[in-house]
Amino acid sequence: MTEKKKADNITWHESKVNKNDRRKLNKHTSAVLWFTGLSGSGKSTLAVEVERKLNERGIHTYILDGDNIRHGLNKDLGFSPEDRSENIRRIGEVTKLFVDAGIMTLTAFISPYHEERQQVRELLNDLEFIEIYVKCSLEAAEIRDPKGLYKKARNGEIKNFTGIDAPYEAPKHPELIVETDQLSLEDSVKQVIEFLERKGYIYL
Amino acid sequence: MTEKKKADNITWHESKVNKNDRRKLNKHTSAVLWFTGLSGSGKSTLAVEVERKLNERGIHTYILDGDNIRHGLNKDLGFSPEDRSENIRRIGEVTKLFVDAGIMTLTAFISPYHEERQQVRELLNDLEFIEIYVKCSLEAAEIRDPKGLYKKARNGEIKNFTGIDAPYEAPKHPELIVETDQLSLEDSVKQVIEFLERKGYIYL
Repeated sequence: MTEKKKADNITWHESKVNKNDRRKLNKHTSAVLWFTGLSGSGKSTLAVEVERKLNERGIHTYILDGDNIRHGLNKDLGFSPEDRSENIRRIGEVTKLFVDAGIMTLTAFISPYHEERQQVRELLNDLEFIEIYVKCSLEAAEIRDPKGLYKKARNGEIKNFTGIDAPYEAPKHPELIVETDQLSLEDSVKQVIEFLERKGYIYL
Repeated sequence: MTEKKKADNITWHESKVNKNDRRKLNKHTSAVLWFTGLSGSGKSTLAVEVERKLNERGIHTYILDGDNIRHGLNKDLGFSPEDRSENIRRIGEVTKLFVDAGIMTLTAFISPYHEERQQVRELLNDLEFIEIYVKCSLEAAEIRDPKGLYKKARNGEIKNFTGIDAPYEAPKHPELIVETDQLSLEDSVKQVIEFLERKGYIYL
């Protein structure tokens, strides 16, 4: 019995469905589109519209964002520096699982620190981490203020708010920069899709 | 600008790709096959072989197990009661994301406590949680001891080991029971696949 079991365990590793098998089934590669930028810069809006375009083209996608992470996996975390760091660490690990599952993953988190984004990049293989800097001036983001958060930060109701009393470290070498205070949503989406086509992540 | 942005945010919610869109693209439903049982009962072996069969049939799958969870997302957790509980909580939340992503998800964790499994069940919709009790006598599991853990537990090198000095609460109403100390691996896999066919999770 023991030996049979050991033999089974060998088969186990050999026959495991792997990332390549999943990509083959999906008929496309997998990677993460890591949207980073200020609150109100348009990360979620852009990610959602890009996802829709990809889905229409038969690409298997998933978005990780505040909606499905902060209320679930990371609901035990607050906004202290330690908790913010743990928040991004877990998101990075879940992203890795999704990319391993063959999914074109999109994330929409402020992720203000270079080091944390770098940690996620290092979890993944080359070409699997596509850092997209959703660039928008603080002024434009604050005028939009879709969730009323800048107002609360200015009033002191929220502490450590990125751009107000906590820093945003802009990506130094992002794979793509989308200037959402210069472009329409439609053109922003187009820029991302064309990047993915040009780099061979998706086919024409 | 503000008003345009607000309008965009409305579109955002309406146009989001949802679970049904993803299932439609995959051409199958999504759920979790939650394998539970003693260490050495054959959970991982069974999950891996079931995954292979599903993949061959074009079903989009992913396995969450000790290999990809304990060394990544949950590497900050030990084996205290609190950490074991947090371990399963996070796995439940990640499972929910994968099911939402349209993936037929398989998990292979001892998950010894009824209450924790129940918590995961409640995170999901009806029919999305398929509890599979991988039933194997302690004697048979201990003879197999594929990782040498029972030996260490008996020596006192490992504390709180399920079945030795920590309880295993067998599922009361699992969707399926697979008796791995009675069946060959092949027959065990067949039992799971036939269950999925019979219940309409996968098509003939």
